[in-house]
Amino acid sequence: MTQDQLIHQIKTKQSFLCIGLDVDLNKIPEVLLKEDDPIFAFNKAIIDATHHLCVAYKPNTAFYEAYGLKGWKALEKTIAYLNEKYPEIFTIADAKRGDIGNTSAMYAKAFFEDLAFDSVTVAPYMGKDSVEPFLSFENKYTILLALTSNVGAYDFQTKNVDDKALYKHVLETSKTWENAERLMYVVGATKAEFLEDIRKIIPDSFLLVPGVGAQGGSLEEVCKYGMNKNIGLLINSSRGIIYASKETDFAEAADLKAKELQSAMAAILDRSES
Amino acid sequence: MTQDQLIHQIKTKQSFLCIGLDVDLNKIPEVLLKEDDPIFAFNKAIIDATHHLCVAYKPNTAFYEAYGLKGWKALEKTIAYLNEKYPEIFTIADAKRGDIGNTSAMYAKAFFEDLAFDSVTVAPYMGKDSVEPFLSFENKYTILLALTSNVGAYDFQTKNVDDKALYKHVLETSKTWENAERLMYVVGATKAEFLEDIRKIIPDSFLLVPGVGAQGGSLEEVCKYGMNKNIGLLINSSRGIIYASKETDFAEAADLKAKELQSAMAAILDRSES
Repeated sequence: MTQDQLIHQIKTKQSFLCIGLDVDLNKIPEVLLKEDDPIFAFNKAIIDATHHLCVAYKPNTAFYEAYGLKGWKALEKTIAYLNEKYPEIFTIADAKRGDIGNTSAMYAKAFFEDLAFDSVTVAPYMGKDSVEPFLSFENKYTILLALTSNVGAYDFQTKNVDDKALYKHVLETSKTWENAERLMYVVGATKAEFLEDIRKIIPDSFLLVPGVGAQGGSLEEVCKYGMNKNIGLLINSSRGIIYASKETDFAEAADLKAKELQSAMAAILDRSES
Repeated sequence: MTQDQLIHQIKTKQSFLCIGLDVDLNKIPEVLLKEDDPIFAFNKAIIDATHHLCVAYKPNTAFYEAYGLKGWKALEKTIAYLNEKYPEIFTIADAKRGDIGNTSAMYAKAFFEDLAFDSVTVAPYMGKDSVEPFLSFENKYTILLALTSNVGAYDFQTKNVDDKALYKHVLETSKTWENAERLMYVVGATKAEFLEDIRKIIPDSFLLVPGVGAQGGSLEEVCKYGMNKNIGLLINSSRGIIYASKETDFAEAADLKAKELQSAMAAILDRSES
């Protein structure tokens, strides 16, 4: 998928919502546990109910690996279903990978070729040669962790490197890498006030913003400081949508929660256009 | 496995060799490609030929994920084979994971419970709450990336944070985390001269040292600066051992290469004891 196609989808749907598919078998409706593949059954119902309200889905690989082979199979079926039934949707493997060059190339193969995701999240700690193998894939995007939404972000990411926070150093350095135009960045919504500074460094890049909802971030604040001329935001919500109900009405409840967020986004887009 | 059991194994085998099981189907003997599960067949042959010379095996998950479901199945079979046939061996999932707390807990479940590895490598960028879920498992070890062996290590890891390299900051901070005694660290052999300083911060911890061999690090140098009273080192070699031959004699060739390294290690241990 190209970035223009993503932007077109955002404008058409009046939404920049990304839904996190983080399936925990302890949290899904009990009735689904009788299914052959409860994880996929849950994802399929959520996707069918919400696809018209969001522009991206983001399965976090941890939740699939925790169920071993069955989990990996459910991940394969989920991405295959998305690619076949809703090819306009932008897909994100939230995998936070990163390794030495030849090994990162294997991860890139896994997520871009074997599973056919549009994008993958990558950790920056190992530097340029751990990220560039991902960037070599055309029409695929590498979403680099910059400033995450958790408390631990203050352990290293906000510490000063030569009078500048490490995450800013990551942003600036990554701009010099080959095919840097294929980079997007993870920036946590719990730190919306940082977005103004971040936009000075990467005015044009898309930001994947987790932490709206369950983690306490504000949609209005994120948009105020983070939106650019191409919108440039993907706002993720996981638990707040997919676990809106544990009863048989879980998909309808997810639809309602997604609709709330999409409506708020449409209002913001409407204001920003006028 | 306890750390004492690992140390006992090192002394018994006169080896602190870890063998990386990074299986690339383009590099293994063609004859194996006819097998039902070529990846597992290759690993089994390598393990059976070399287990008496090493104390640890380290599959890198990238090489398994790149082959999708088949790859993940081969990983499951490999760790199950190791745990059943050679339970004295220390097993490392080289996965370089790390995410927000509840998600890291799912990764910990995947590698410590579902797959039953003794340890897993974890990236530090997301800080304390991304690592502590791994540390809560008794008799399991979390191997934190400190200073890696690739060129990109100079992008961020060696940059100064408050007059101290980021990787030193990671070492010091991690010592304050809950169950920090279950931490080990990745320190690349290509930077052996850094080990003297590193040992001042973490004198007692085990270090997993990649980069001897293919990446150019020196065993003598690493031992000179990195060894502690409990040895405290696991030296990894992957390609240099497992791809010593692409012919039908690949397992014997791996055995010979492993024997070379083990002999060098035995000589060093002998010197350090006298």
